[in-house]
Amino acid sequence: MASPAVASKFCLFRKVLLFSRLATKTCVYDAGMKSSFATHAQPEKLTVRVQQNGIRNIILNNPKKRNALSLSMLNSLQTDILHEIEREDLRVIIISAEGPVFSSGHDLKELTSSQGREHHSKVFEACTQVMTLIQDIPVPVIAKVNGIATAAGCQLVASCDIAVASEKSMFATPGVNIGLFCSTPAVAIGRAVPRKVALEMLFTGTPISAQDALLHGLVSKVVLEEKLEEETLKIAQKICDTSRPVVSLGKAMFYRQMAQGRNTAYSMASQAMVDNLALKDGQEGIKSFIEKRQPVWTHTTDKAHK
Amino acid sequence: MASPAVASKFCLFRKVLLFSRLATKTCVYDAGMKSSFATHAQPEKLTVRVQQNGIRNIILNNPKKRNALSLSMLNSLQTDILHEIEREDLRVIIISAEGPVFSSGHDLKELTSSQGREHHSKVFEACTQVMTLIQDIPVPVIAKVNGIATAAGCQLVASCDIAVASEKSMFATPGVNIGLFCSTPAVAIGRAVPRKVALEMLFTGTPISAQDALLHGLVSKVVLEEKLEEETLKIAQKICDTSRPVVSLGKAMFYRQMAQGRNTAYSMASQAMVDNLALKDGQEGIKSFIEKRQPVWTHTTDKAHK
Amino acid sequence: MASPAVASKFCLFRKVLLFSRLATKTCVYDAGMKSSFATHAQPEKLTVRVQQNGIRNIILNNPKKRNALSLSMLNSLQTDILHEIEREDLRVIIISAEGPVFSSGHDLKELTSSQGREHHSKVFEACTQVMTLIQDIPVPVIAKVNGIATAAGCQLVASCDIAVASEKSMFATPGVNIGLFCSTPAVAIGRAVPRKVALEMLFTGTPISAQDALLHGLVSKVVLEEKLEEETLKIAQKICDTSRPVVSLGKAMFYRQMAQGRNTAYSMASQAMVDNLALKDGQEGIKSFIEKRQPVWTHTTDKAHK
Repeated sequence: MASPAVASKFCLFRKVLLFSRLATKTCVYDAGMKSSFATHAQPEKLTVRVQQNGIRNIILNNPKKRNALSLSMLNSLQTDILHEIEREDLRVIIISAEGPVFSSGHDLKELTSSQGREHHSKVFEACTQVMTLIQDIPVPVIAKVNGIATAAGCQLVASCDIAVASEKSMFATPGVNIGLFCSTPAVAIGRAVPRKVALEMLFTGTPISAQDALLHGLVSKVVLEEKLEEETLKIAQKICDTSRPVVSLGKAMFYRQMAQGRNTAYSMASQAMVDNLALKDGQEGIKSFIEKRQPVWTHTTDKAHK
Repeated sequence: MASPAVASKFCLFRKVLLFSRLATKTCVYDAGMKSSFATHAQPEKLTVRVQQNGIRNIILNNPKKRNALSLSMLNSLQTDILHEIEREDLRVIIISAEGPVFSSGHDLKELTSSQGREHHSKVFEACTQVMTLIQDIPVPVIAKVNGIATAAGCQLVASCDIAVASEKSMFATPGVNIGLFCSTPAVAIGRAVPRKVALEMLFTGTPISAQDALLHGLVSKVVLEEKLEEETLKIAQKICDTSRPVVSLGKAMFYRQMAQGRNTAYSMASQAMVDNLALKDGQEGIKSFIEKRQPVWTHTTDKAHK
Repeated sequence: MASPAVASKFCLFRKVLLFSRLATKTCVYDAGMKSSFATHAQPEKLTVRVQQNGIRNIILNNPKKRNALSLSMLNSLQTDILHEIEREDLRVIIISAEGPVFSSGHDLKELTSSQGREHHSKVFEACTQVMTLIQDIPVPVIAKVNGIATAAGCQLVASCDIAVASEKSMFATPGVNIGLFCSTPAVAIGRAVPRKVALEMLFTGTPISAQDALLHGLVSKVVLEEKLEEETLKIAQKICDTSRPVVSLGKAMFYRQMAQGRNTAYSMASQAMVDNLALKDGQEGIKSFIEKRQPVWTHTTDKAHK
């Protein structure tokens, strides 16, 4: 019988195959992935990155450790997010996880007193960096959740731009039960759900269901487990059908204006609209609509001729 | 057979009649409306304004152009909103639309490169002015939605103080599909619904149903289409039963304090309560309650004698 | 037949007994309560405070006046909240009410013009103090609502950290109907529910059901009336199972960081995590988890040895 590690690798491989089958155009693994799957010789990677047709799948790949966000996991995730982030052929990132736990949050062994205060700071700094990075990069990030997401794992879901969850998924901030209040997860969760819901989660650690997460805005869609892949890819595909610089400009402006009062927000956003219209892709979109044809994007930030 | 323009005018006329039947007191069209309906000689107006018993109905009236918010439409809307806005007999504004589309947003022909950057700026400025005006005027504004509201049309719904929608209504920000990210609609929508819902709408352009709009806070009530008029008028009528300066003071304070931190908000709002109590209508309300009788409002900002 | 006052006192007494039965450890009434129940000689108290096993129950106890938040009621509530607030054996506060009305808000007799502007200011100052106090004290506060909560009574629910309501509960801000716009309640309610829901409540005074309050985030849980006590105690008990300084640090940080932009919020919260880990109870929690045993809290702010 296969060892758990091999079984897990096989399972992941099957998922990648499935992903390939569902996608319709040529499959282009990036170099790192190809060797990993071809040779089976490298040590198990903490995150696996597969990209094709503009969709990058990053899979948290340490199910035996419940996909804990250890420093190495955070670094691996950050590297996979930032890898050739400016290339035009990257359009959207999906973060999912291997195994029944999406992520259980920090690796507690990194937070003992023997590690020391400075190490603790380093861990939270690295975590904050990944969470904010997700919102600051030029492409949308979708969390695809199929299992339980707790503490910083729940923060990761809350930090993504979009989150799709299977019905069996659960969300919790149980830090308080082990004497570590989920204060950093609360930054993301407190901005995603109503204050009373956030505080009940934070004070009690009690998990909420996927349906309640939808009701309160922590995720934007809940689907049957067997539809999770399909529904997430549908959203990703829609993003791939649009112009990259237009989405990029829109995402950046969304977060910038939301941090401002209404009037400042409007003056920023109006400027963004004018800049958007000055793009070749901005004018192509409008022209194609008026001419009743499909737009042909350049995906560049080239300006339209006046 | 009647031309579509005549049919549409007839349909609108029937709506005005219905509105008249439902209202119980004397009907007073304002001058502009009367001539428009009496003569049928003027060019079709982009917005129609009908007012009686304190309730002003403004109807987006360009269904053939899907009630696009062209510069002229925005100007017409602004004029109808601001018309004698300070008169005591105006108590609430309802914005609705003729035809199956509430509003499809900007007129794309005004956003081509041949119109030029300065014209684009002018369009977004005019749009922002109307959207913020709705929140800054002294009477409540209700969106009555019976159809699809997209892009700046969805922004218009999000900008109203209250929104009632029929079950068949839909809401979308599909700008990204034609290369123009809905950055200005995002200012209003991002402040109305959870962030993940807003971003999924903005990144994909996929419409959400009226029920989902209610779930996420974009509208405050969803009713059967045949109940839409009645339910909207119920809310409007309740507002008419109150004192104008009290509502006006409350509306202004609501938006002011919401832009502040909790403590500043409370000190502003406490001051507003004291000022409210100094009004004749503030004291009349309390007196009438203690004396178990209906209040008789002055609707003025006259101060009560100490 | 018993007078209403006696009946009410009996009813309250039965509630206290029930509360005692449900709790499992030794019952320790504080001195004030004991004498009140033992002698039946003191004047009826506006609020009743009962504490055992870390859970303090504060009961609004003026049902004949619909638990109006008069100046004396506010003072009594504040005193009961602040009573030995720093003692380690206080872990959570539950605010509930005697009778079918949770609270009807301000006592209108204190807001007439004969009382004068300065008195009005004093009332709103006292009210703001209680509402903000609830969020600023080191222990969580749960509203347990079984009836209608209006105006400042609704504000009280919105100001608690957590709110559990029975299905029959209702919430309204009807001040506008008596000429006094609920501007101070709007500070709390506008921060709890979507803007359109808040404005419809404020402009019309129409009550919303417990289910709608849950849908929109005004309460975090709705249960059958017969389950209200049990479900509220379950939440309270979970809080009692955690470490007091950890909860206290987490609660303070939650409100502080929510008032900041994302980046400042994260840097504050990361610091809070590091400080939390430096506590004896922070390290005990992690150790006990790794060692798969129950944690033993000191409930002090003692630092762990490096």
